[in-house]
Amino acid sequence: MNFQNIKNKKYIQDYIHQQIEIDNFYLKFINPFQFQRLRDIKQLPTSCFSFPSVNHTRFEHSLGTFSIANKYIKFLKNNQPELNISKILINSVSLSALCHNLGSPPYSSSFINFLKEKYNFDFNVSEMSYKIFENIIETENIDYDNKDKEDEQFDINICKKIISGNKNITNYYEEIVNNTKNGIDSCIFDYLKRDMYKFGFPTQGIDFQILTNNALIIDNKICFRENDINSINDLWNNKINMNKKFYLHKVTKSVELMIKDIFLYSDEQFKYLEKINNLNDFLTFTDFILKQIKLKNSNNNSLKKAQELIKRIEKRNLYYFVGTYDSINLKSSFETFNEETLLKYTSSDYINLTKDDIRINKIKLNLGNDNKDPLLNIPFYKINKKNNTCEVVYKKREEIDHMLPNKFEEQIIMIYITEKNEEKLKAAIAALTNYCKDNGTQANIYKSPKKLMQKYNSSLFSKKLFN
Amino acid sequence: MNFQNIKNKKYIQDYIHQQIEIDNFYLKFINPFQFQRLRDIKQLPTSCFSFPSVNHTRFEHSLGTFSIANKYIKFLKNNQPELNISKILINSVSLSALCHNLGSPPYSSSFINFLKEKYNFDFNVSEMSYKIFENIIETENIDYDNKDKEDEQFDINICKKIISGNKNITNYYEEIVNNTKNGIDSCIFDYLKRDMYKFGFPTQGIDFQILTNNALIIDNKICFRENDINSINDLWNNKINMNKKFYLHKVTKSVELMIKDIFLYSDEQFKYLEKINNLNDFLTFTDFILKQIKLKNSNNNSLKKAQELIKRIEKRNLYYFVGTYDSINLKSSFETFNEETLLKYTSSDYINLTKDDIRINKIKLNLGNDNKDPLLNIPFYKINKKNNTCEVVYKKREEIDHMLPNKFEEQIIMIYITEKNEEKLKAAIAALTNYCKDNGTQANIYKSPKKLMQKYNSSLFSKKLFN
Amino acid sequence: MNFQNIKNKKYIQDYIHQQIEIDNFYLKFINPFQFQRLRDIKQLPTSCFSFPSVNHTRFEHSLGTFSIANKYIKFLKNNQPELNISKILINSVSLSALCHNLGSPPYSSSFINFLKEKYNFDFNVSEMSYKIFENIIETENIDYDNKDKEDEQFDINICKKIISGNKNITNYYEEIVNNTKNGIDSCIFDYLKRDMYKFGFPTQGIDFQILTNNALIIDNKICFRENDINSINDLWNNKINMNKKFYLHKVTKSVELMIKDIFLYSDEQFKYLEKINNLNDFLTFTDFILKQIKLKNSNNNSLKKAQELIKRIEKRNLYYFVGTYDSINLKSSFETFNEETLLKYTSSDYINLTKDDIRINKIKLNLGNDNKDPLLNIPFYKINKKNNTCEVVYKKREEIDHMLPNKFEEQIIMIYITEKNEEKLKAAIAALTNYCKDNGTQANIYKSPKKLMQKYNSSLFSKKLFN
Amino acid sequence: MNFQNIKNKKYIQDYIHQQIEIDNFYLKFINPFQFQRLRDIKQLPTSCFSFPSVNHTRFEHSLGTFSIANKYIKFLKNNQPELNISKILINSVSLSALCHNLGSPPYSSSFINFLKEKYNFDFNVSEMSYKIFENIIETENIDYDNKDKEDEQFDINICKKIISGNKNITNYYEEIVNNTKNGIDSCIFDYLKRDMYKFGFPTQGIDFQILTNNALIIDNKICFRENDINSINDLWNNKINMNKKFYLHKVTKSVELMIKDIFLYSDEQFKYLEKINNLNDFLTFTDFILKQIKLKNSNNNSLKKAQELIKRIEKRNLYYFVGTYDSINLKSSFETFNEETLLKYTSSDYINLTKDDIRINKIKLNLGNDNKDPLLNIPFYKINKKNNTCEVVYKKREEIDHMLPNKFEEQIIMIYITEKNEEKLKAAIAALTNYCKDNGTQANIYKSPKKLMQKYNSSLFSKKLFN
Repeated sequence: MNFQNIKNKKYIQDYIHQQIEIDNFYLKFINPFQFQRLRDIKQLPTSCFSFPSVNHTRFEHSLGTFSIANKYIKFLKNNQPELNISKILINSVSLSALCHNLGSPPYSSSFINFLKEKYNFDFNVSEMSYKIFENIIETENIDYDNKDKEDEQFDINICKKIISGNKNITNYYEEIVNNTKNGIDSCIFDYLKRDMYKFGFPTQGIDFQILTNNALIIDNKICFRENDINSINDLWNNKINMNKKFYLHKVTKSVELMIKDIFLYSDEQFKYLEKINNLNDFLTFTDFILKQIKLKNSNNNSLKKAQELIKRIEKRNLYYFVGTYDSINLKSSFETFNEETLLKYTSSDYINLTKDDIRINKIKLNLGNDNKDPLLNIPFYKINKKNNTCEVVYKKREEIDHMLPNKFEEQIIMIYITEKNEEKLKAAIAALTNYCKDNGTQANIYKSPKKLMQKYNSSLFSKKLFN
Repeated sequence: MNFQNIKNKKYIQDYIHQQIEIDNFYLKFINPFQFQRLRDIKQLPTSCFSFPSVNHTRFEHSLGTFSIANKYIKFLKNNQPELNISKILINSVSLSALCHNLGSPPYSSSFINFLKEKYNFDFNVSEMSYKIFENIIETENIDYDNKDKEDEQFDINICKKIISGNKNITNYYEEIVNNTKNGIDSCIFDYLKRDMYKFGFPTQGIDFQILTNNALIIDNKICFRENDINSINDLWNNKINMNKKFYLHKVTKSVELMIKDIFLYSDEQFKYLEKINNLNDFLTFTDFILKQIKLKNSNNNSLKKAQELIKRIEKRNLYYFVGTYDSINLKSSFETFNEETLLKYTSSDYINLTKDDIRINKIKLNLGNDNKDPLLNIPFYKINKKNNTCEVVYKKREEIDHMLPNKFEEQIIMIYITEKNEEKLKAAIAALTNYCKDNGTQANIYKSPKKLMQKYNSSLFSKKLFN
Repeated sequence: MNFQNIKNKKYIQDYIHQQIEIDNFYLKFINPFQFQRLRDIKQLPTSCFSFPSVNHTRFEHSLGTFSIANKYIKFLKNNQPELNISKILINSVSLSALCHNLGSPPYSSSFINFLKEKYNFDFNVSEMSYKIFENIIETENIDYDNKDKEDEQFDINICKKIISGNKNITNYYEEIVNNTKNGIDSCIFDYLKRDMYKFGFPTQGIDFQILTNNALIIDNKICFRENDINSINDLWNNKINMNKKFYLHKVTKSVELMIKDIFLYSDEQFKYLEKINNLNDFLTFTDFILKQIKLKNSNNNSLKKAQELIKRIEKRNLYYFVGTYDSINLKSSFETFNEETLLKYTSSDYINLTKDDIRINKIKLNLGNDNKDPLLNIPFYKINKKNNTCEVVYKKREEIDHMLPNKFEEQIIMIYITEKNEEKLKAAIAALTNYCKDNGTQANIYKSPKKLMQKYNSSLFSKKLFN
Repeated sequence: MNFQNIKNKKYIQDYIHQQIEIDNFYLKFINPFQFQRLRDIKQLPTSCFSFPSVNHTRFEHSLGTFSIANKYIKFLKNNQPELNISKILINSVSLSALCHNLGSPPYSSSFINFLKEKYNFDFNVSEMSYKIFENIIETENIDYDNKDKEDEQFDINICKKIISGNKNITNYYEEIVNNTKNGIDSCIFDYLKRDMYKFGFPTQGIDFQILTNNALIIDNKICFRENDINSINDLWNNKINMNKKFYLHKVTKSVELMIKDIFLYSDEQFKYLEKINNLNDFLTFTDFILKQIKLKNSNNNSLKKAQELIKRIEKRNLYYFVGTYDSINLKSSFETFNEETLLKYTSSDYINLTKDDIRINKIKLNLGNDNKDPLLNIPFYKINKKNNTCEVVYKKREEIDHMLPNKFEEQIIMIYITEKNEEKLKAAIAALTNYCKDNGTQANIYKSPKKLMQKYNSSLFSKKLFN
């Protein structure tokens, strides 16, 4: 009797996937400290300051993404035997999903923006993930090429391509995780449902599995069933909704800016660039960094400023939100807008602002195809039952929905001042309002002092960001 | 010790509201057969043919609407003592909510369209509801004016206004149920969550109660808190979503058309106009009408056609969906389009269609303000903490969301043929395609025979309606 | 490219299984009127009188049971290739699940108890289901033996065994549906989650699929993984809980008794015994029978009593609950207890009761192994990794839980009087109390008139039945 | 117009309570760092090692408990005006709920057991909570006695009694939080639903609010409505279920023991007794202690052992579970059983075990009334409608349920060895088996080496603990 199948697997209880089935082999990657580190990296590190219950980690998300990718590739194998999907390919794709977030730094946006701002350095999470993946193979002596243990083989080149986030996808199996073509992948299937559950919206009825169950590989591409366009639309609508209602909350984004500054001020002492160049350092670099900064004994003045900011976060004395605007249709550029741009629009009627009074958070919000309709990137298949043929089709927006948007991107600029000071607030509001008027759009001011409002008549603002 | 409060109430277990708290007094309206009749009137009478589990009734929805309205008016009383909301007003509003659907006929759209088509008669559900409300008062000897039983008094004129669906609302309390101003009322709060649950989307996280908890009455109008605009947006998005994914399903709408025809064919024998003019007849008129028609022994030929259609529904031999288009921007009119309009566009290349081959379902889908932004009808209040003042404001679309639509209505025309006949299908597709081309829009054809597609190149269609 | 797999299947949206995947072949059994009839047979026909939202039908439950059984047998095939599970076996088991409830009469307990009481006839739902299954094969000309259409073959003998509820199960695949060995089957997996959802308890986290995913066939028996004993325990706990909180509600059971009497009184006119002997009659016999009785014009006195009872249900003038007791440890017998037994215990202090004043509902509540621990019937397997062996083990209660019961059955007797009359209530309470005292147990009286309580000191009762 | 009510409140989004309504006044206690510290104290600190998603904090639980207590006391005020519940009392009870967990140490059981073991010191969380509560009042200059700000007054003596966990409750309002009489309080209402959600069981249908809505104060005691006994039973069943399935998981408890040892080994360096005697130290003592230990540079040998244990947790090289037994009916004592007791039962057939090889976790699991039925402590009220009286009654177990347990406590002893060594495992199993046999019970061994099993025939064990 054959019970090997059952013998070598394990279940992990999860609130999204109920029971994540996992072959014992994969535990070789999960148990090492490099992977366990993800328990100390929050998925949405500053959301808990606006929504106390949002404290899930990259650890659970990685297991969830694995679970989806593992079923996804097995479904393809089952639906299309002619693809000759091997155990090696299944292992390669599943491991890539499991390890796709290994390189996450703590406080991701804050950290990445800090590196960009100070060193003009673009930190690449995917490449770091692959480095750590290699490191696990090395420290754990994993023999991926052992012909005797067929069940444990995988193709390290495929893993490299997928984990590193290859921009030029040529094979269907590279679309299952880190899908740089259209973003419809195991990662978003997991994080969207997981985040929604954590923010308080259990999504029993939202079912992305139908997409993967019905997918067909044609011309080495993943194509979805025509009818399942609804599920893709659901996914996009929920993604936008989550951004508007939760991810971009003004407090969440305020703390994000403060932590970026904490990295700036503590850099002399903690030398972050070294941390990302030295794998051993990086592997102990987690959300705990804030406590380390706080506990550090030193007379370094810059560090003291960092420590001061940590105390301000603890006491909820946060950077103060001024307002926001959408830069998408502006003559001026989203990329180049910065504190100095704004300072040019200050008015002599108000107190003098300096660059250090202002902080800016810039967010591009789209559906994976810049300002174009993301549908254009998704191949569907259409079965003609009579002729028994199957062809690839692309869908147009009008075919789905006449009440949908004619814009597919927002370029959101959020302005903060570093302290809650009424005179500075007035000055910042005036500058933002002037800037927007001059550039042909309207600023959405958060809380206008009464008089000011009469002067500038700018009472309107995007409620979505001000919950 | 005071336990009267607890003594005189009862709880009804409900999957949306958990425990509906209900004063015993209201049972005088629930227990009579006129109200119990609603157990035999399905809320979405033909949806169960596409979604087997959708079989909830007006009975549960009426209790749910009551529950919301009853809490709503009590919250207002609590929040604004200066409104002097009396027990009489609470009773009047709560009873109106409870009874707002008493006049529902079986298979509502089918029945109403049948009356319109055959007799050009506009059946008014709200007025019928009020008639039955009066009838309960009479048959149960309910003394609404008894000064000795203060707890059981209500104002029958207020009930009349609310239940009958007054178009000229002058008092805030008329907005709580049957809100003809903007549609944000207890009825939609209940049916949206209830329908979503039944279609498989439990909505623990969707919370409309915050809207009612924070409402303020200013100038005799219900105004919502500025921040709660998000909840109103959620409501609208979910309403559109439910229409697109569920309410307008092609099978649901096919059966709806068939039942309209069943009413037409059986009218000679069942004399429906008499049923609505004679209250006793109407009170036994429920979803079981289909079985009554089926069991009727008669040689009447028209009745036999009705019986034949019932058998076709039972065997799922349904009217066949041809395609759809949106009439909103068309030169030709939504109102006047009918079978004959279409027949003019048939082509001699195809079989001859007659009026009886075609059926048309027309649906206006909007958010309660025709083709205008429904936001314009919703007053919000804005508290100025400094001046301790509170003013009414209206919001603009741009303030909420830049990715939202610039259109607020669809006028959906759905075309069916009465039998699944390939030649007729080709002819109908050709006519629909020609008509649309001629009127400057594009038809969405459901399933095109291969050749035809090449000829007309009309492969596109709205997936939303074809689940 | 192979897309036949995808081409020939369909999805049905369901709130429990999300998307029920169904091969087109099975539609040959679903579309005929014999199956569609189940839309008119409620799953819990009298529960809606206590819980308005509980109105789901055998139709949805049949689809759900199919969905589970279909996945179940496919999992076994996948896990144990050595079983050589054929497409024929998959079809046979899946069809049996789909059709296992075809023979359900309307108002099942009421109808079955009526036949037993009047004719001492034991109506067998399973046998009737198989008859109708055969009937569909005949009327739809289904060729189950067509060697050319391998995908559509099935073994009618296997179907017969399973659908008819074979008491002597010899093959593992007979345990998947109608499992007479231990009741752990696709049917309970579906109805428990479905009922819980409808009563208001969405059960996202309750996962029976792990049981089926990990099942192993050893010695032609289904054995569960040792660890999954927890899921079986969950299932039993939820089953008991649902009975105590919902299924046995006093109002539900009151209406059940009234409908049994309606069958009795209307039998002369409707001749129910003929209905079950004539398949065509049976196939139009649905929940609609109550309306047919109501609408029947006749001077038959017995029928008028039936019609009177229907009106009483409509007005909620129900049989009145007196009290209950558990007969499990009594010297007297559960089987023989009846109205006359009770009448012997009336007291001359009270009004004289007659047999017609009293109604009795008897329910045996256990977990599928009479008064013995159901665990004793469930084989588990235990894998010994070292020796690479796998053995069958049985578990003892003490191994799971020390706080669990030492009793596994209740024999619940519920007593009603046919009208809410205080003198009769007093007399019935006295009789019940005396009877119980005499037989060494205690009655649980629902609502005791004050004085009576002092006399008999019988204030205690099972709250579970009185929600 | 009155909008003060609305002006001064705020909402916090929560997945259990949806929107927690909170008067701005309470933010004076939430914003200070003493309260924010709870963000770094996990509710179930070692559960995330068996269930990755379980990482919620005392911060969210404190807000949730506040939300329930605040509504609870307001309901009482509303239902029984004669109680004259003042704003001061509402504030006192609500603040006590908010602050009832302020004194939680990191890794609570591990820390408390360490103090007990090393110093025989009983750490009292409740008293520490009150100390920190006082500390907030002092550092924030909160004037609880300001007659001018009536809305912000509270009675510090009531807070002291409630927060400190008074064992002699004399007033009903002391039962709302930290209910030492019967444990039915706001705290368990929150944590049970919260934990269930986090473990993957959203509990939309479980409704404890009905208990508080219907509570009546009689003789200065909280009495529940007779019918609501079902909800209390649900609560107990779910509590037991959660323990068996989740809280007591073998891995969770293994890590708990390891962290206790980490405290022991690092005590020399970190001086934990000083931390609890010095409030400032305690206020920076959080779950990050493990990282602090890990990063500490020192040659202290004991510390190195602590650091080694942390690495073992990171690599999941955990203390190894041997087995368990229930000590409730044993001649020997639960209290005195320890490593040495077990060592006396080792056998010369096996390797020699030392005290340091063994670890023991002892858990008393009951429902708040030791080994007696917890129902005996819950007063219910019974309304007699005729006489218009209301009396207090106590319920007996038999009245609810005949299938319930006759035991109300388990005394669970869980045995671990400190390394996964087969010889040591055999020796430990033998000792445990012998001990149990000698004391008249049976051990439940987790994984028995084959031979051993034949010798001792001890294949049985409690699956509940071995998920």
